[in-house]
Amino acid sequence: MSIQKILIANRGEIALRIIRSAKEMGIATVAIYSEADRKALHVRAADEAYCVGPPPSAQSYLQMEKIIEVAKQSGADAIHPGYGFLSENAKFAQLVEDNGLIFIGPSPESIEVMGSKLAAKNAVAKYDIPMVPGIPSAVSEVKIAIEQAARIGYPVLIKASAGGGGKGMRLVEEESQLEEQMQRAISEATAAFGDGSVFIEKYITSPKHIEIQVLGDKHGNIVHLFERECSIQRRHQKVIEEAPSAVLTAEVREKMGQAAVFAAKACNYYGAGTVEFVVDKDLNFYFLEMNTRLQVEHPVSEQITGVDLVKEQIKVAAGEKLSFTQEDLHIHGHAVEVRVYAEDPKNNFLPDIGQLVTYVRPQGAGVRVDDGFEQGMSIPIYYDPMIAKLITFGKDRTEAIDRMKRAIDEYQITGIETTLGFCRFVLEHPAFLDGSFDTNFVNKYFTPDLLQTDANEEEAEIAALLVSQLLQTQNTRKSTIQQTTTNSQKSKWKTQR
Amino acid sequence: MSIQKILIANRGEIALRIIRSAKEMGIATVAIYSEADRKALHVRAADEAYCVGPPPSAQSYLQMEKIIEVAKQSGADAIHPGYGFLSENAKFAQLVEDNGLIFIGPSPESIEVMGSKLAAKNAVAKYDIPMVPGIPSAVSEVKIAIEQAARIGYPVLIKASAGGGGKGMRLVEEESQLEEQMQRAISEATAAFGDGSVFIEKYITSPKHIEIQVLGDKHGNIVHLFERECSIQRRHQKVIEEAPSAVLTAEVREKMGQAAVFAAKACNYYGAGTVEFVVDKDLNFYFLEMNTRLQVEHPVSEQITGVDLVKEQIKVAAGEKLSFTQEDLHIHGHAVEVRVYAEDPKNNFLPDIGQLVTYVRPQGAGVRVDDGFEQGMSIPIYYDPMIAKLITFGKDRTEAIDRMKRAIDEYQITGIETTLGFCRFVLEHPAFLDGSFDTNFVNKYFTPDLLQTDANEEEAEIAALLVSQLLQTQNTRKSTIQQTTTNSQKSKWKTQR
Repeated sequence: MSIQKILIANRGEIALRIIRSAKEMGIATVAIYSEADRKALHVRAADEAYCVGPPPSAQSYLQMEKIIEVAKQSGADAIHPGYGFLSENAKFAQLVEDNGLIFIGPSPESIEVMGSKLAAKNAVAKYDIPMVPGIPSAVSEVKIAIEQAARIGYPVLIKASAGGGGKGMRLVEEESQLEEQMQRAISEATAAFGDGSVFIEKYITSPKHIEIQVLGDKHGNIVHLFERECSIQRRHQKVIEEAPSAVLTAEVREKMGQAAVFAAKACNYYGAGTVEFVVDKDLNFYFLEMNTRLQVEHPVSEQITGVDLVKEQIKVAAGEKLSFTQEDLHIHGHAVEVRVYAEDPKNNFLPDIGQLVTYVRPQGAGVRVDDGFEQGMSIPIYYDPMIAKLITFGKDRTEAIDRMKRAIDEYQITGIETTLGFCRFVLEHPAFLDGSFDTNFVNKYFTPDLLQTDANEEEAEIAALLVSQLLQTQNTRKSTIQQTTTNSQKSKWKTQR
Repeated sequence: MSIQKILIANRGEIALRIIRSAKEMGIATVAIYSEADRKALHVRAADEAYCVGPPPSAQSYLQMEKIIEVAKQSGADAIHPGYGFLSENAKFAQLVEDNGLIFIGPSPESIEVMGSKLAAKNAVAKYDIPMVPGIPSAVSEVKIAIEQAARIGYPVLIKASAGGGGKGMRLVEEESQLEEQMQRAISEATAAFGDGSVFIEKYITSPKHIEIQVLGDKHGNIVHLFERECSIQRRHQKVIEEAPSAVLTAEVREKMGQAAVFAAKACNYYGAGTVEFVVDKDLNFYFLEMNTRLQVEHPVSEQITGVDLVKEQIKVAAGEKLSFTQEDLHIHGHAVEVRVYAEDPKNNFLPDIGQLVTYVRPQGAGVRVDDGFEQGMSIPIYYDPMIAKLITFGKDRTEAIDRMKRAIDEYQITGIETTLGFCRFVLEHPAFLDGSFDTNFVNKYFTPDLLQTDANEEEAEIAALLVSQLLQTQNTRKSTIQQTTTNSQKSKWKTQR
């Protein structure tokens, strides 16, 4: 069973990223796109591209039947779902297989089990995997919830069974708040997932979100590729990730890796997956959930291990055995990823879409940019406002962070606000540098006025625009030695000391 | 002794590359530029920039006194010479030191000794370093040369004592050719180096050019960072390099590394340097010369070892001890570099300078581009026509090569001819893939008609230009599923199968 042509059922940076690995393997690629993505880079990069409908996603990127029709029509023999969209949809995975195509991901059964937080907890219960103290069954009556919370001990967290991204999640500090927060959680969960089931868990104080990358084949082999630290979040969504964690000991790393492999075994997992844990400040770790797909932040694991996760996904889907064992995997250096969102950190991280008037990527040793845009393009309003993932790699954490700061300074984006300045703020914060941060970093430490405000920002943007359009610097000529001052560039490149 | 501000006495990609490492270390940077480089990226990237005169280089980048004046005026405490220009000029290194500045490179004495091939051979003679059979003293009389060649045995090579880049080098197959070739060598050497000294060596059949990266500190510690295979050359100049070599055994690697460390010890070396060897097909290796500077191809060593050589150069210059030993260094994966020259491979690799009408760099995992240009810029006629170094890294040689082919296909350059297509040809050649190639690769295997000629090349270039300028794809809209064919992009991205 070999794969000759892959349809990528996704868009943006992840579609491009998958196309690149496929090309390196000599595999042809088929892109799909919505009418809003007609000019997108992934459309140009693929060998073929087909429009599957208008935005929003429900009418195009989520059109299962149409996507499968395109796959068959184009002669693709496999479908890679990327992340988001149909990537964790067991029905789609089944439909792909029913049509004689290969789904590049786990089995529909694995997706199904891990898709429900409660079913997942039950599945992994037979292994010795630590769980957050809680009651692993849905609760709808306030009276029962009050009993459960008393048994667990406050503070507790009410979570949506079908949840993710913080939706349907509410913190309850004491009994008097429980009824109100529970009703909110149920209504949020119903709105977000069409499923109002919630359950109650102990709230871990000063929690870190640390996840383990796993990779399994169809022959029962499963390895882990160490951890990713993903605690820096805004609006319950990750914005900076790194690998390895700054605080894990070798012993805890080994135990978490083993627990993640067990979780994968519990659902007969194959392909790339991620087991998420919450870790408290004493490095006790508790299973949260398993994501049965490639993660946004997978590049940091690729950088430190040298493994191309997309290529491995494709090889596993084609039935190949893993070409390495756990003992072959080692951590070489340190990687950091910052997500470059079209958002305004000064305005509660609200999306700030528009045109990329200037867009110049950083370059150089240890810098990787995974994106789906070019200068002049506009960020569509219909999709996640992520412009790019900026990843740096260095021999140790200090070098990776120093490179990231340099790369952020070198990144030239005008026309929209981005999270770059916010990320630079985080990278210089003592709580980030010493590793003591947790998922509450933004609430604890960040206020918009802490962002460096550049008095000449607007002027600099206009100047940068002129520079990029006219391709001329503003040097005045003198016949002898003279100093050049190009203010617009200085504001981006200047060494911060 | 710490370094706060560095003047970079160079231009182009290497100036930018040095600026990036300095910024990551929190060190301020001073650029110099000729009037022809007024708009160059290195001028914008540095914290300060000073014009040092008009082209050609003799009137600007080689103006020692003026450069030192700029360094002092700007408050720089160190000078990085890059490669080429003043990087191997012992007089300049001495002048820098005499002015109380730090030269980021070896001592003037090390440069002096290794600057002459004959002096270098004499210096390393006390160590057990294999030498190409030959007579290590200058010869000017034909009669004596004939005697020497007879003793060594034909074929022999006449080489310039001050040589490099193949200048003043002549192959002599039999005695009857000797007089003529010797006169040519002497006149070439005189023209190129102002020094007509030549000497005679055995010509190694099927020679590979393999070099060892070394790094020493001012406290007597010297390590090597393994080898770079640099045999793919055109006009005696490297165009594709890789690390590690496809053919060296661990035993030979170890021996060559040891020999390189001895060569560095022989001249009390500190800083980054390269010991070049010629290797025959039985893996016998012979010392050629030592380059007392950063090499163009240093990134492949950085990629496989994780060491930032420019940062190490700066730290060593500041008096720091090496932070690692030989035992700490390991090879993680495989790296390939192709040099992207503004040259026409179909026209004997003659420079083809002009404007970069389209210039879009490849991106993605394992791809690094070190360059000094942006779209719209022109390649100046005054300098080396290298546009960029495209470096790929992978878990093994196959992955690094596959990535390179993908990255070459993704690189969009129009307006001038480049070596990219030629490099792609090499990467697919059986003699490259099996490692059996030597420095005669181009003569043996390459003729311009072997390059893929794209019938729609010109059309595609025009279309790519339109695409990049207008930022619109040429998709026609249909209401149902439709295939997009953007020819101009296809020609660059299309999977080669």
